[in-house]
Amino acid sequence: MTEGTSGGSARLWGGRFAERPDQSAESFTASIMFDNRMVREDIRGSVAHVRMLGRQGIIPADDAATIEAGLWKVWDDVEAGTFAFSVADEDIHTAVERRLRELIGAAQGKLHTGRSRNDQVATDTRMWTKFALLRVAQGVHDLAAALADQAAANVDVPMPGYTHTQRAQPVLFAHHMLAYVEMLRRDAERLQQAWSRADVMPLGSGAMAGVTYPIDRASVAADLGFGAISRNSMDAIADRDFVLDALYALSMIQLHVSRLCEELIWWSSGEFRFVQISDAFSTGSSIMPQKKNPDVAEIARGKTGRVVGNLMGTFMMVKGLPLTFNSDMQEDKESLYEAVDTVEAVLPVMTGMLASMKVNRERLAEAATGDFSLATDAADLLARNGVAFREAHEVVGRLVRSCIEQNKTFEDLTDEEWAALHPVFAVQKPPLTALESINARDIPGGTATPRVSSAIEEAREGLTAMQQWIDREMAVRTRTFSRNSPGASPR
Amino acid sequence: MTEGTSGGSARLWGGRFAERPDQSAESFTASIMFDNRMVREDIRGSVAHVRMLGRQGIIPADDAATIEAGLWKVWDDVEAGTFAFSVADEDIHTAVERRLRELIGAAQGKLHTGRSRNDQVATDTRMWTKFALLRVAQGVHDLAAALADQAAANVDVPMPGYTHTQRAQPVLFAHHMLAYVEMLRRDAERLQQAWSRADVMPLGSGAMAGVTYPIDRASVAADLGFGAISRNSMDAIADRDFVLDALYALSMIQLHVSRLCEELIWWSSGEFRFVQISDAFSTGSSIMPQKKNPDVAEIARGKTGRVVGNLMGTFMMVKGLPLTFNSDMQEDKESLYEAVDTVEAVLPVMTGMLASMKVNRERLAEAATGDFSLATDAADLLARNGVAFREAHEVVGRLVRSCIEQNKTFEDLTDEEWAALHPVFAVQKPPLTALESINARDIPGGTATPRVSSAIEEAREGLTAMQQWIDREMAVRTRTFSRNSPGASPR
Amino acid sequence: MTEGTSGGSARLWGGRFAERPDQSAESFTASIMFDNRMVREDIRGSVAHVRMLGRQGIIPADDAATIEAGLWKVWDDVEAGTFAFSVADEDIHTAVERRLRELIGAAQGKLHTGRSRNDQVATDTRMWTKFALLRVAQGVHDLAAALADQAAANVDVPMPGYTHTQRAQPVLFAHHMLAYVEMLRRDAERLQQAWSRADVMPLGSGAMAGVTYPIDRASVAADLGFGAISRNSMDAIADRDFVLDALYALSMIQLHVSRLCEELIWWSSGEFRFVQISDAFSTGSSIMPQKKNPDVAEIARGKTGRVVGNLMGTFMMVKGLPLTFNSDMQEDKESLYEAVDTVEAVLPVMTGMLASMKVNRERLAEAATGDFSLATDAADLLARNGVAFREAHEVVGRLVRSCIEQNKTFEDLTDEEWAALHPVFAVQKPPLTALESINARDIPGGTATPRVSSAIEEAREGLTAMQQWIDREMAVRTRTFSRNSPGASPR
Amino acid sequence: MTEGTSGGSARLWGGRFAERPDQSAESFTASIMFDNRMVREDIRGSVAHVRMLGRQGIIPADDAATIEAGLWKVWDDVEAGTFAFSVADEDIHTAVERRLRELIGAAQGKLHTGRSRNDQVATDTRMWTKFALLRVAQGVHDLAAALADQAAANVDVPMPGYTHTQRAQPVLFAHHMLAYVEMLRRDAERLQQAWSRADVMPLGSGAMAGVTYPIDRASVAADLGFGAISRNSMDAIADRDFVLDALYALSMIQLHVSRLCEELIWWSSGEFRFVQISDAFSTGSSIMPQKKNPDVAEIARGKTGRVVGNLMGTFMMVKGLPLTFNSDMQEDKESLYEAVDTVEAVLPVMTGMLASMKVNRERLAEAATGDFSLATDAADLLARNGVAFREAHEVVGRLVRSCIEQNKTFEDLTDEEWAALHPVFAVQKPPLTALESINARDIPGGTATPRVSSAIEEAREGLTAMQQWIDREMAVRTRTFSRNSPGASPR
Repeated sequence: MTEGTSGGSARLWGGRFAERPDQSAESFTASIMFDNRMVREDIRGSVAHVRMLGRQGIIPADDAATIEAGLWKVWDDVEAGTFAFSVADEDIHTAVERRLRELIGAAQGKLHTGRSRNDQVATDTRMWTKFALLRVAQGVHDLAAALADQAAANVDVPMPGYTHTQRAQPVLFAHHMLAYVEMLRRDAERLQQAWSRADVMPLGSGAMAGVTYPIDRASVAADLGFGAISRNSMDAIADRDFVLDALYALSMIQLHVSRLCEELIWWSSGEFRFVQISDAFSTGSSIMPQKKNPDVAEIARGKTGRVVGNLMGTFMMVKGLPLTFNSDMQEDKESLYEAVDTVEAVLPVMTGMLASMKVNRERLAEAATGDFSLATDAADLLARNGVAFREAHEVVGRLVRSCIEQNKTFEDLTDEEWAALHPVFAVQKPPLTALESINARDIPGGTATPRVSSAIEEAREGLTAMQQWIDREMAVRTRTFSRNSPGASPR
Repeated sequence: MTEGTSGGSARLWGGRFAERPDQSAESFTASIMFDNRMVREDIRGSVAHVRMLGRQGIIPADDAATIEAGLWKVWDDVEAGTFAFSVADEDIHTAVERRLRELIGAAQGKLHTGRSRNDQVATDTRMWTKFALLRVAQGVHDLAAALADQAAANVDVPMPGYTHTQRAQPVLFAHHMLAYVEMLRRDAERLQQAWSRADVMPLGSGAMAGVTYPIDRASVAADLGFGAISRNSMDAIADRDFVLDALYALSMIQLHVSRLCEELIWWSSGEFRFVQISDAFSTGSSIMPQKKNPDVAEIARGKTGRVVGNLMGTFMMVKGLPLTFNSDMQEDKESLYEAVDTVEAVLPVMTGMLASMKVNRERLAEAATGDFSLATDAADLLARNGVAFREAHEVVGRLVRSCIEQNKTFEDLTDEEWAALHPVFAVQKPPLTALESINARDIPGGTATPRVSSAIEEAREGLTAMQQWIDREMAVRTRTFSRNSPGASPR
Repeated sequence: MTEGTSGGSARLWGGRFAERPDQSAESFTASIMFDNRMVREDIRGSVAHVRMLGRQGIIPADDAATIEAGLWKVWDDVEAGTFAFSVADEDIHTAVERRLRELIGAAQGKLHTGRSRNDQVATDTRMWTKFALLRVAQGVHDLAAALADQAAANVDVPMPGYTHTQRAQPVLFAHHMLAYVEMLRRDAERLQQAWSRADVMPLGSGAMAGVTYPIDRASVAADLGFGAISRNSMDAIADRDFVLDALYALSMIQLHVSRLCEELIWWSSGEFRFVQISDAFSTGSSIMPQKKNPDVAEIARGKTGRVVGNLMGTFMMVKGLPLTFNSDMQEDKESLYEAVDTVEAVLPVMTGMLASMKVNRERLAEAATGDFSLATDAADLLARNGVAFREAHEVVGRLVRSCIEQNKTFEDLTDEEWAALHPVFAVQKPPLTALESINARDIPGGTATPRVSSAIEEAREGLTAMQQWIDREMAVRTRTFSRNSPGASPR
Repeated sequence: MTEGTSGGSARLWGGRFAERPDQSAESFTASIMFDNRMVREDIRGSVAHVRMLGRQGIIPADDAATIEAGLWKVWDDVEAGTFAFSVADEDIHTAVERRLRELIGAAQGKLHTGRSRNDQVATDTRMWTKFALLRVAQGVHDLAAALADQAAANVDVPMPGYTHTQRAQPVLFAHHMLAYVEMLRRDAERLQQAWSRADVMPLGSGAMAGVTYPIDRASVAADLGFGAISRNSMDAIADRDFVLDALYALSMIQLHVSRLCEELIWWSSGEFRFVQISDAFSTGSSIMPQKKNPDVAEIARGKTGRVVGNLMGTFMMVKGLPLTFNSDMQEDKESLYEAVDTVEAVLPVMTGMLASMKVNRERLAEAATGDFSLATDAADLLARNGVAFREAHEVVGRLVRSCIEQNKTFEDLTDEEWAALHPVFAVQKPPLTALESINARDIPGGTATPRVSSAIEEAREGLTAMQQWIDREMAVRTRTFSRNSPGASPR
């Protein structure tokens, strides 16, 4: 795609040219093999534009009606799967116009009044991006809901909390799951902010200077469900920030997915055995009959690189580009499409895998107090009884070392041994169960059972609000793209 | 830095260890050579923590007062430049505690009650990030203001508008400048959103499970100027999203700077001569006496890679990390510091260069109509007189080709030649000056002079709002970090 | 693809599994939609494996012959375009085996003896990569040859040499072109080194520990045209260095292309007019009848980000992966395929564009001495006559400044004015033509005409050597993949 | 640094300039705060240049001798730590010349004859890079040697080999270690190739067109230990490929380190307990007395992002830069320095950690046969007795499933149970020990004990060859940089 270029016999720009395009160059510059994904956005954008041209008297109302009717016929072709295009159409915008001309004849020529491919492409891409981000937000919601469900189903299960991949202090399995819910809630916020920056209509910016016809940009924006119009025509054409914003939000989702997958993979190992991924989300080996591999989690983790790579590539593409449109910018689409497709594929399988995952409650509970992970509680007990924390830490540290040397656990120690360690322990032994330790952390954000129970509720309320936003904007999208959309503000 | 580790003789965790640290490992794991930049945040965070410990009766009020007084003495050392530390302190948190102990003795030991290095580091880093983002926002504001000033000073100067680095249609120089103001306004929005996600206090998350003391997190947050507290202790410790958000916002600023610099560099070339960068922002050559190089713009453009590289590196660092804290995460700081330093250095020199740049008004005006950039207007004139745009485009395209072959411009054509081209041109000749063409683009976002004048006003209003937010949050920061900060909500 | 997994009814690993695969997970983990590109490598690899199994008596010679014959039938299907597969086949290896079983029945079951999918996939990917790198090397050669041809055709054309995008000193246009030839020669060296690291056969590594059958790895390597066999089975399975090496070499090619395109784009602008890209490699605008856009160069430059993004993504994918095979690693293929496809598309259009590009010799020559780019020569003349270079630089610098103020060039100065400047100039005036200046730089690597003429010869010799390597290895490939390949060392 | 620019009163390029540099711009464009690391390279490069100027009679021999003597005095300042510079010197090249002038007066002015800062900077950077790559190669060698030593010390220890983080088949611990040795051997090859591309001297390229004096480039290259001289002056100035090659080689090293660290971290967890990292390479926790954290491995893994980020940033910096020198390119140095420093810090601590690491031989051996990792051997036994592998796989897969359901291992099965499974098992039971399984994989690259023993020998021979190359080139470096370097080819 270039600003209004079209290839083959349909070329709109032959007048100035003496030579025909080189064939390899023609297919090199064509974008239709990927931008055909925006065909619905392109048709709908043209419908809004031509309605406005008619309303404003820029073209005769009859012509406007004819063109709109023709556009809906192309739409029907698309829906029926009979809309054909080839590399000779160069881009989807040309393909739609070519088909429109076949359907309605010369009147089609008036559609391009007061519009350039540059503002048309930017408008289509923004509509596509807005819809994609909504779909991804739904996927984020569903994964977060599955995590919250796992939290609720296992709210009483202790497990080791880790720092440095070493057992640190016991936590509730639910608390661990909710940490990921928090990440996904931030992801949803980023998606929403990226969506808002995409929700600005560039149409009316023309090739880059604005247009010479008395168009009414606000009414077109309302017709297309845009919340705002762009403020500077050159920026509107040159701007791909919204693509980067989307790619960044998608990269962050994948980053969080990569962490969750990493944990699930190790938790599924023979050494951890914390969870069992369902056979339905695992694969086997053709050579090793015993193998059950967490293939889904590995691939989901592996795809993180591709999405971040798309972000990197797009940064590099935009770097140093002068204003306004440059054809480099058509490379934004493949990166965006690929990143959206990737995350849209990852989220539902993650959700399915999480929902069907079995939690080995006994194994988790048993591990929760391993490796002296109640040592902090012992030191805290001393500190609460007036021992300086530094001294308390030293006392318990030495205890741990001696236990390791004697191959003992805290539970193996007799009352006398405790008392010998420190007078405080003669009066009160430190917590020796995971739940005692867990429930002592009873502050906002802590892992104590009542705090985690409330947190599940709060998280679910947050997810409900997220869903409401998605539903509202999905409804706008659906209304906008229905054939009988009013032609006036759908908001 | 690791969760509460400290090196050398000050080590707080000797009890469990049989061997002394390897010296190269000690310096490899030390973070103090970079995290000392957070010394003020660390002291202030400790002040808020100890005040709360006293208020809650977790430690005696007297001890709290002694510790706070001691912390302010360390603060005075810092202000006086006499606070000494070395790699043996391992991290700035240990260094502050070591100095505090020197000043107040054993009472220092109670400061660490109900707090881990993990939540302390995260809190310090967030405070540091919030302040850094405010300073960067000021730099963005100032550069945008300089661009708006250049727009205002040159509101009547036409220049060529470009697509594909080819002259497309005339625009006002002011319109071009304002395109960059729009980019910077989006950058400010991103900074503000990143700031908001950093504005969440993790203190109270302990090592990662919460703490066992009845701490009051909300009052500490209010004391430190945080707008919210974290909801999940594991997420709070494991989360570096706010660093990535900051790095992304900084990368986008640099991306926009790279485009502006690219244009200024080419505009300064012997071929363009559109602008003259002041001698004060240029450099010469030791070998070529005639050279005047746009060095500042080149280096600013060149630094884009480093900032985006920091973003990429941090993505890669976080990828696949299990919960919660892992020492990999201490690598976030050098990347963040470097990116902040870079952008903080770039923005003021850009502002100075823009403010002192001379615009070659004649050269721009002359170029504005070169290369037949009024051809669209000619085609539009035909279209407005009932000619199908496709035909109009063809007619004018052939005219351009024939002019090129005869080495003529539109202005060289006689009335008869125009009339011979098309009957419409017999009645009315198309616009032959840049301003005619420019002023015809009189729609919202267009380049017509009155639109651009209004846009300058609107942009300045936007910048005023940006400044108000910066001022408000800077005042919170200043109040929070003043010695007599109230110890209650500064908001 | 996972180590020998296969989906649908063809699954080879059902024994241990109680549940059927989830459908979305099945399509998520399938790799056949992309790895089918390695179908020829897969078949040929199996042919070599089964020949060896027969030779070694691991399976009966009859079975080996039957399997080989069957594999060639599958090959014929592929050549005829009648080889069908679906997502149910999961990966191309399963699809080939499934088809083989349909053709020859139970004997197929013996093919998988002494081989795992893990070593099979790695072997196929290396064969694919080797061939791809050869094709890319051919593209690099051809572009370099086109640049050398442009150099030869314009060996006498001076132009401005630039530093900091400012005219610095005159150079020959040919010298500028040859700078890119040098870059491409380094690229070819990197391709060759990447190729060598791919030229190591992992087959025989089994799942990752080696196999329990008396296989003869060396003879298989010889049959497949590999130069070496891997030395450690775990490394052989876990290693994707060769993919990164390939992606890095491809990224560097694109980086050089991006620089060349940048120059061609600006050189095509109305301000430079240094070159004319052929209409056949340009596009127009649907709205602006006068436009001729360097679309090919822009898109080629824009694609740089995608290739480097693929490198970044693959780095991130491999980061932190434990040994040996992890399914994350199947993500290497899409990145590699995309990068290869991109560079394979870019190089020939660049070559076509370069070959058909017109050089505006007069415009270049005229620009060559603009902006006082002979100032260094004037200073050098003083220096050669005993003036300290520092003083010489100062004298000529002041002259430039005064010329700018009086709007004069060096050529406008009279003999008297020269003499007044410095006594040396009374005796001899500095060079006042570009060619004088150019030919004075008569050292190895310099721009003097005879040096450049020799450099063209030397470059062409280098390209001949490059072509010889490509031809030799292409012949090995062709011989290896011909049906009647000997089954013995093709080298 | 810009081509010969110098700041403050020392500026060499005042003649053409009317205004003084802006102070913030001056410090923004200065590079001395980082490029001072090349001071020895700069001095040595000047020594070689001035010797040649004297030899060629371009400047009087006496002047040459005076300048060389002065340069060695500056060298002595550097060695004594008394060489002072400030931001006013702008770059290290100016600082050295400024000091030289202080020492020897006006004669200094002749040093810059026939040389530009552009070729000088490129030469210095290449010399610095060559030396850095040698030092890194030594670090790679030492880490590989430590791995080989661990292999040798544990050549008889079986452990589980993993695919998909699931136990797959037993391997020798030594075999696992040797996999990393292989990676590091490829890294050394990449370092050597990057070194070779850096080993090309650009001096003599002048500002970018070559110089007008009869310099002898070959003799300067010989004096400086360069293996070749550059072939095109424009390329020589514009080329930063060698920096990217170095960054890529460094990134690959870090990538391999990240994998090794990932394994060591998990192997140190309470769940694995495969190895014990020495206390000397671990850290503790200020809050949790029991903790021992693999801090060194985490930080080493975490630094991978920074090095790859440097590579990405440099790619982005170079992207789209026109020829020849642009100041963007001075950003290469900080990225390169940081990456070299990082890897130079990582390699020795990794080596120390590996060398002091305890291997839990019993735990490894016990785990080696867990999770039915001998299942493949059972299937192979059937296959070797004529059962189609597919059927064999199915039989053993069902066995695994039934064992899991009955909570049994293979070792728990009676002879009767084996016989009931398949007639073959009535005759011969499959291997039931790890070593039987391991030693059955007796092919090149396999894990059988004799193969691994030979592999250790072969690896050590490879390391010896690596060391020889390092020693040879280090000797060249030392000879070149010794004061009495001959001034003739040191090779």
